Amino acid sequence: MTIRPIITLTTDFGLEDEYVGAVKGVLLSFLPSAQIVDITHAIDPQDVQGGSTILSRACGFFPDETVHLAVVDPGVGSARRLLAIKTPRYCFVGPDNGIFTAVLLSETTIQVHQIVNSSLFLSPVSRTFHGRDIMAPVAARLAGGMDISNVGPSIAIDTCCTLPVRKILVKDNQMIGEIVSRDRFGNLRTNISGEDIRKFARDRAITLKVGKQSTTRICSTYAEAESGDLIAVVDSFGFLEVSVACGNAWEEVGARVGDLVTITLQGGDL
Amino acid sequence: MTIRPIITLTTDFGLEDEYVGAVKGVLLSFLPSAQIVDITHAIDPQDVQGGSTILSRACGFFPDETVHLAVVDPGVGSARRLLAIKTPRYCFVGPDNGIFTAVLLSETTIQVHQIVNSSLFLSPVSRTFHGRDIMAPVAARLAGGMDISNVGPSIAIDTCCTLPVRKILVKDNQMIGEIVSRDRFGNLRTNISGEDIRKFARDRAITLKVGKQSTTRICSTYAEAESGDLIAVVDSFGFLEVSVACGNAWEEVGARVGDLVTITLQGGDL
Amino acid sequence: MTIRPIITLTTDFGLEDEYVGAVKGVLLSFLPSAQIVDITHAIDPQDVQGGSTILSRACGFFPDETVHLAVVDPGVGSARRLLAIKTPRYCFVGPDNGIFTAVLLSETTIQVHQIVNSSLFLSPVSRTFHGRDIMAPVAARLAGGMDISNVGPSIAIDTCCTLPVRKILVKDNQMIGEIVSRDRFGNLRTNISGEDIRKFARDRAITLKVGKQSTTRICSTYAEAESGDLIAVVDSFGFLEVSVACGNAWEEVGARVGDLVTITLQGGDL
Repeated sequence: MTIRPIITLTTDFGLEDEYVGAVKGVLLSFLPSAQIVDITHAIDPQDVQGGSTILSRACGFFPDETVHLAVVDPGVGSARRLLAIKTPRYCFVGPDNGIFTAVLLSETTIQVHQIVNSSLFLSPVSRTFHGRDIMAPVAARLAGGMDISNVGPSIAIDTCCTLPVRKILVKDNQMIGEIVSRDRFGNLRTNISGEDIRKFARDRAITLKVGKQSTTRICSTYAEAESGDLIAVVDSFGFLEVSVACGNAWEEVGARVGDLVTITLQGGDL
Repeated sequence: MTIRPIITLTTDFGLEDEYVGAVKGVLLSFLPSAQIVDITHAIDPQDVQGGSTILSRACGFFPDETVHLAVVDPGVGSARRLLAIKTPRYCFVGPDNGIFTAVLLSETTIQVHQIVNSSLFLSPVSRTFHGRDIMAPVAARLAGGMDISNVGPSIAIDTCCTLPVRKILVKDNQMIGEIVSRDRFGNLRTNISGEDIRKFARDRAITLKVGKQSTTRICSTYAEAESGDLIAVVDSFGFLEVSVACGNAWEEVGARVGDLVTITLQGGDL
Repeated sequence: MTIRPIITLTTDFGLEDEYVGAVKGVLLSFLPSAQIVDITHAIDPQDVQGGSTILSRACGFFPDETVHLAVVDPGVGSARRLLAIKTPRYCFVGPDNGIFTAVLLSETTIQVHQIVNSSLFLSPVSRTFHGRDIMAPVAARLAGGMDISNVGPSIAIDTCCTLPVRKILVKDNQMIGEIVSRDRFGNLRTNISGEDIRKFARDRAITLKVGKQSTTRICSTYAEAESGDLIAVVDSFGFLEVSVACGNAWEEVGARVGDLVTITLQGGDL
């Protein structure tokens, strides 16, 4: 246990209500030395996929032993399970609804426990705010050094909920992926990794098409392009992203999450 | 005094300007060990009622000895008083404009002092930002263990400003309350507690009406209803809330703060 | 080195993506004792001027030895330099694009170093997120006590980028400044200081004009005016600000950043 155990928060609570404050108050009540770090509270309400994406992109930059608490929980009060997950580096606490898809699919040495030990919870437990009443006390205790086996029974990983992973399709001279999200700058994030492109293109010229727009520019950096150019770059997490230099691709391309991104080897059929 | 004294912030400063940063800088200048927790900075500008509501719903989840600093202060620079309040568990610092209504009305053992000791303040004190120049230094010193009597003279609780409390009306077979706020998810919060309903309905069927819509469903959880259903639930703070399952009641019902919520015993007159 | 070294963040990352979380994770990985304080993440995307303004208005309220990390970095990946700056009280880390204009122009005893020592960085360094991969590790190490000379060679201050400073113009009976920003409350901030006005007006009556509206009221506080009045006040940072009492001058005056603010001695020509 570190001297100032870190607990991160990824939620759809927003910042305008008392939800975040109440959760932090509970965390500090159980673990006064906790260092609480917001990853984000701006996940769209009940957008488990969005929460899963942001968490998976941020969590790995934290020190070992960090506890990641993720509360996007449309099923609160239903029979959905609550999980505590131990990986080689971290603990994760949250609902069994797919928010931990990346963790469950990528880690090999992992323990999953169902949270059922009500002696760890606030009392009484409300029906609509388990983030505050169950998950926060459990996260604080895990960050404080409690062994994960105290939360409840071990369960099999393959019984845990994972979201469908969008696969890319390669056929003849085309690779087809999709827009999986956008960021604040309007960059369109795809499910195509830089490695996917490298293997597919092998230094040959390509054309990337999204919506009605296309580009042949795969840049290393935004700064390489002229202001207003549509470009593709490999982003800081290793995935292809469609951008407008000094602009907002989301607005200018008019693309939406789920739209196809087609990469064609030049000389091939557009 | 705890090792890492907690100071919470509830303000209408927003997050886009330098106000929050300046206040935190001052707090840390006076108390380097302070652990600062944002409850919210998204209170609507000058909405004392809104600040009062959020603070009252979040503050009780923090550990004993927390100092709650609340700055929604449309009267800054006028003759309005500044208060430091000591309750059995907490200190509160902020303007005497009703933001501490719940504290003043609910606590029995309580000391209220007017903040006048200018030797505690930043120098010079600006005319328009007492949150930074007066309240932050005082909050930091209280969190650091200073006795509350140092801030200025004790004053009588009943001279302190409180906001009108919206009472519910019970007549014949109807109970009438109102919408007091909404949350990020579009849930409509009322001033009717779960306890009020239980005493009124005594297990008899009821109909709840808000705007042009009505429901007979008082659910325990959101998850109990079908997606799109209008329902009422007792929320995590013990009050009745009108929701649309997996939806946004605020948008779909078209209700506004202050709209009436009518609960009628079935068989009675709608 | 203090026990809990403070690192502030001023960025255009927004709060909805994983960028802030990733940077905080890196800071804590390099310096577990760091106390991270958000000044703001709501700078408009790539608005170096806006970032510079907010940072300059907030930074001075923090304790000595604070490290201020500022990442508004449209030139990421280009040849733009990264700077570490040491002033008598603080360190600053960020791109050489003008975001440190106020620091560079106002401090007399100051050391500037170019950040080039890649042994301090994350490995590999992405092309598009130097805030996470270069600046955060450097800021954490400086906050942890590393000497600034380790980041790279000392460079001359006058080779550093500064933004043009908007000067006020005084001619005959008029002083002309401009709107430099707005705040959350709709207050219109100008580049005219309270000191400028005092020297110019020397207690004579003045008329202030912005857009199609004018006022003769220079108030000490918002509370002095009637609700709805257009007024001017000297704000908490010493500059003239145009406000509507209990209202939103930004919306009601319809002014924009860059609009002229004209102050005329009464009896003179409007």
